[in-house]
Amino acid sequence: MSTDNGSNAHSRWVGYRPDLKILDCTLRDGGLVNDHMFDDDKARKIYAALVAAGVDYMELGYKASKKIFSPDEFGCWKFCDEDDIRRIVGDNDTPLKLSVMADAERTDYHEDILPRDQSVIDCIRVACYIHQVPTALDMLKDARDKGYEALLQLMAVSVVSETDLRAALDMAATSPAEAVYIVDSFGALYSEQVRDLTRMYKDIVGAAGKEVGFHAHNNQQLAFSNTIEAIVAGANRVDATISGIGRGAGNCPLELLMGFLHNPKYNVRAVLQCCRDVFVPLSKQMDWGYSVPYAITGQLNQHPREAIKWRAGETPDDYVGFYDLVIEED
Amino acid sequence: MSTDNGSNAHSRWVGYRPDLKILDCTLRDGGLVNDHMFDDDKARKIYAALVAAGVDYMELGYKASKKIFSPDEFGCWKFCDEDDIRRIVGDNDTPLKLSVMADAERTDYHEDILPRDQSVIDCIRVACYIHQVPTALDMLKDARDKGYEALLQLMAVSVVSETDLRAALDMAATSPAEAVYIVDSFGALYSEQVRDLTRMYKDIVGAAGKEVGFHAHNNQQLAFSNTIEAIVAGANRVDATISGIGRGAGNCPLELLMGFLHNPKYNVRAVLQCCRDVFVPLSKQMDWGYSVPYAITGQLNQHPREAIKWRAGETPDDYVGFYDLVIEED
Repeated sequence: MSTDNGSNAHSRWVGYRPDLKILDCTLRDGGLVNDHMFDDDKARKIYAALVAAGVDYMELGYKASKKIFSPDEFGCWKFCDEDDIRRIVGDNDTPLKLSVMADAERTDYHEDILPRDQSVIDCIRVACYIHQVPTALDMLKDARDKGYEALLQLMAVSVVSETDLRAALDMAATSPAEAVYIVDSFGALYSEQVRDLTRMYKDIVGAAGKEVGFHAHNNQQLAFSNTIEAIVAGANRVDATISGIGRGAGNCPLELLMGFLHNPKYNVRAVLQCCRDVFVPLSKQMDWGYSVPYAITGQLNQHPREAIKWRAGETPDDYVGFYDLVIEED
Repeated sequence: MSTDNGSNAHSRWVGYRPDLKILDCTLRDGGLVNDHMFDDDKARKIYAALVAAGVDYMELGYKASKKIFSPDEFGCWKFCDEDDIRRIVGDNDTPLKLSVMADAERTDYHEDILPRDQSVIDCIRVACYIHQVPTALDMLKDARDKGYEALLQLMAVSVVSETDLRAALDMAATSPAEAVYIVDSFGALYSEQVRDLTRMYKDIVGAAGKEVGFHAHNNQQLAFSNTIEAIVAGANRVDATISGIGRGAGNCPLELLMGFLHNPKYNVRAVLQCCRDVFVPLSKQMDWGYSVPYAITGQLNQHPREAIKWRAGETPDDYVGFYDLVIEED
């Protein structure tokens, strides 16, 4: 792919960019569809597939507060306790780095995130909305102080004003985050917007030595293509999930992303095997992936929650009914 | 959307480009899935939806030779006889233009295409592969001489060398075609390639006063995004189908494209109604749309016929088996 970051300007899509790193968030974002209830067999198969595929990071789930969320109601990947992780990965003696997501205001990070030398986790990804940036910065510092790689996931960027976004990026630029992600939570962004945002992030946090990342949603069938756009514009950290699993319309499918990247260290066959053995059966029990209601909320730059509710309701395919509902509420 | 054709350089995605025209090929490309056997009720509903939606062109089907293809084996939209068309559209007293596709070497165009004043058809779209360009030019001349708008659809561009493509475009530039389409038959193109091709077409046929068109396939979930890329690079004629119906992985979904275009003359609600009333039921009887085997042939820049065969076989979801098969044959 081409890139405007100057390092590899003539490679176009035939070449590859060695610095580019994939974070697979199959277990984490997929967990939003099934309340994080992946059984051990599936978690092991996903972990094994990602190791075999040469993926750079695996995001296991959340470090959610047990004061806010009851372990009776959620699977273990909502909390990512050390014992649960080690039951799947042992000491993770592989090149695959392990990551967990810590949501601002939903994580008891001071207590629940162990010092790095007591954990098999490599990386803490802090997720926040724009009004939570100060909390997120404190969480990033906590993670870095404990010895982790720290990443910042600023969500719902499509509803943040440019002025506020620049202010947040200025703050992130002096934070301990190693990468700052553009997060298209509503699947609302078009390619030109992705390009402009990537350039803005590069100008502000990139100039401070941080990588820019991109996390897509597939509401308008643009998750893969927008990920490509971000890469072409210089993003070096990109998210994907096996079979595109993820909340609502899902994420950028790992099997598509690998076809584009051409880095010989990646092995798409291992991903296809996991698609076949884990996700084809799972797709008969769980509902994720593109459908028209998600396209409508994406077009309107709205949170997909109304579409998720509609898909789970009695008339999931009444697209006109859904359109009239959200247009009226808009 | 932005555009590099200079006419509208600052509108970005909020504005719209009045010159941009949508050709809906639901009946034509969808007919490749069911041997053109749409019944009259469905054809009427699709026609009514496109009129209500403000779409510019409706492509009804092919003008296939009855010497090559038996009317016993195919539905009427394989041949688009005047009587069959008029049974659905009457005299088509609407702003919607009607188009049919004429395949090079598969159409008895001298006989089967009536003079324009005896037909309700407005436009003949000639489809050819690179080795059929001379035949296609003769067909374009025949169509133009009979009084039709003529369009050229040069298929499988992703396997045409740049040298040959330039030669073909030079010939198309002096032809009677009003628009020349970039056709990603294998769903293999990435955005940068779409941009480069659109610019090349603009430079050669655009300079001769012709419009550039784009016809996508969704093998890699890039049909909509590549259509956007072509538009941004200056293409003014774009193809779409309702619910993305079309051979294999299908086409660019009309309901997504309209969300991007923002032209107030388009009405997406009429399309959503047709999705719900015609295509949701149809999707339970016919197999189209993205799946992993199409992604694999797209990544390898191959015709999807092997993937279509695999999807219709006994193990449609054995992605590894399919991958091993096509890698071995490659």
